Amino acid sequence: MHPFDAAIRLESLDATHLRGCMTQAYANMVGPFGGITCAILLEAALSRPERIGDPLALTVNFAAPVGYDDFGIECRAVRTNRSTQHWTLAMSQAGEVVTTATLVTALRRETWSAREAVMPAGLPGAERLDRAPHVELTPWVARYDLRFIDGGLERLGGEEAPDSLSRLWIRDDPPRPLSFTSLASMSDCFFPRVMVRRRRMVPSGTVSVTTYFHADAALLARQGDRHVLGIARAAGFRNGFGDQFAELWSDAGELLATTSQVCYFRD
Amino acid sequence: MHPFDAAIRLESLDATHLRGCMTQAYANMVGPFGGITCAILLEAALSRPERIGDPLALTVNFAAPVGYDDFGIECRAVRTNRSTQHWTLAMSQAGEVVTTATLVTALRRETWSAREAVMPAGLPGAERLDRAPHVELTPWVARYDLRFIDGGLERLGGEEAPDSLSRLWIRDDPPRPLSFTSLASMSDCFFPRVMVRRRRMVPSGTVSVTTYFHADAALLARQGDRHVLGIARAAGFRNGFGDQFAELWSDAGELLATTSQVCYFRD
Repeated sequence: MHPFDAAIRLESLDATHLRGCMTQAYANMVGPFGGITCAILLEAALSRPERIGDPLALTVNFAAPVGYDDFGIECRAVRTNRSTQHWTLAMSQAGEVVTTATLVTALRRETWSAREAVMPAGLPGAERLDRAPHVELTPWVARYDLRFIDGGLERLGGEEAPDSLSRLWIRDDPPRPLSFTSLASMSDCFFPRVMVRRRRMVPSGTVSVTTYFHADAALLARQGDRHVLGIARAAGFRNGFGDQFAELWSDAGELLATTSQVCYFRD
Repeated sequence: MHPFDAAIRLESLDATHLRGCMTQAYANMVGPFGGITCAILLEAALSRPERIGDPLALTVNFAAPVGYDDFGIECRAVRTNRSTQHWTLAMSQAGEVVTTATLVTALRRETWSAREAVMPAGLPGAERLDRAPHVELTPWVARYDLRFIDGGLERLGGEEAPDSLSRLWIRDDPPRPLSFTSLASMSDCFFPRVMVRRRRMVPSGTVSVTTYFHADAALLARQGDRHVLGIARAAGFRNGFGDQFAELWSDAGELLATTSQVCYFRD
């Protein structure tokens, strides 16, 4: 079983409760990689029999570090409309809430469609780039084949960068066909913008992340297990908190997801 | 009393419940303007005695149209850390959830700060622009003095626009000193991107909106009741849903908030 699938495996207890165990395979500095927590919460809702549609909007709030131990999830469809369904979720350990989330799932039908954001042209493909040399930084990084075009951590210790733009190819390691859950996880796999900008290790972590899914199942299937392009930037850092806005693109230039987050950092 | 303050007035029932009545002063096409619902939910948490810090991240999910009637709010601080507090909220009418929300409040301390997004230079000030002629479109629009630099609805019926970028000055009408709640409300006061792009009225509405607050109380106080600059754009529209990313700037060029949302639309 792929470590990602093992990590998001859940057991249903009753109509609104599930349980699982937080893997060390995606460990980060303080608690697990936030992306895997996003994927677990998304999996909880997607696994429910009453679920309609595919993910549209997922917000996950990291209230406390998750321990590498059993967790419970409370997962409720609080409102089901004709084409959208609203979910609230909470992950708890030892009776304390460690993560909260809301999710909207939606049935799509074909309509007028258009894009405004465009994948930058002329970027080198993943096959022309080396894998980032940060595999030993922390365990979750080894679970992704990250290939930076720019904005990596290769110049740690250098002068502060003029911006925190990062462009990189992302794939599960070992490769795994893209799914809604793995897309949710990849939405949090950018290194903290504050570290890219300041070119040094800075204690920091995601406080809240929101991902909008543009991809449907057909688009995910077309992408398969090839590298996805991620582009991340920040709008600002101010008094302990900074934001991030990112896009995830298929290698054919289709928008898979957009994602934003706010992070804390220490000086 | 300013109509905004009247709209967000709440009565505390017990440690986790409040109630209010949805005003018609901010009515929209189907139910009230989403921004006023965001402000009400934020006000609920800010009014609690156990609250620490100022708003950092607010996500509101519009599960069903809110009626112009009494509503109840359940508001819980599910986790309080040293410098952040995590809230979950739900607004209900007649026993049914109509809106869900999560909020993070945070204590800030002075740190290294930097911005990356920059307010475009050379834009005409609010005093040089006419108020948008859409005051009679729907009641909430009359509650804002909106002055478009570009991307308004003045060319409805024309050819599809190449993009949905809108840049406009925003102020409460009558003027009111900026607060966290009014900033939350302004974060939803952009016309639907799909209408700007397609240059026609399209049935549409916000499904989920997330706002990150960069401003602290001192920055809000400096802004006072002058116009705020809003800049909104979309990344893509696909099969019934489109997104929006926006910034709200002080007239002195300081970033007040960034906000993203996903909307449904019909063909």
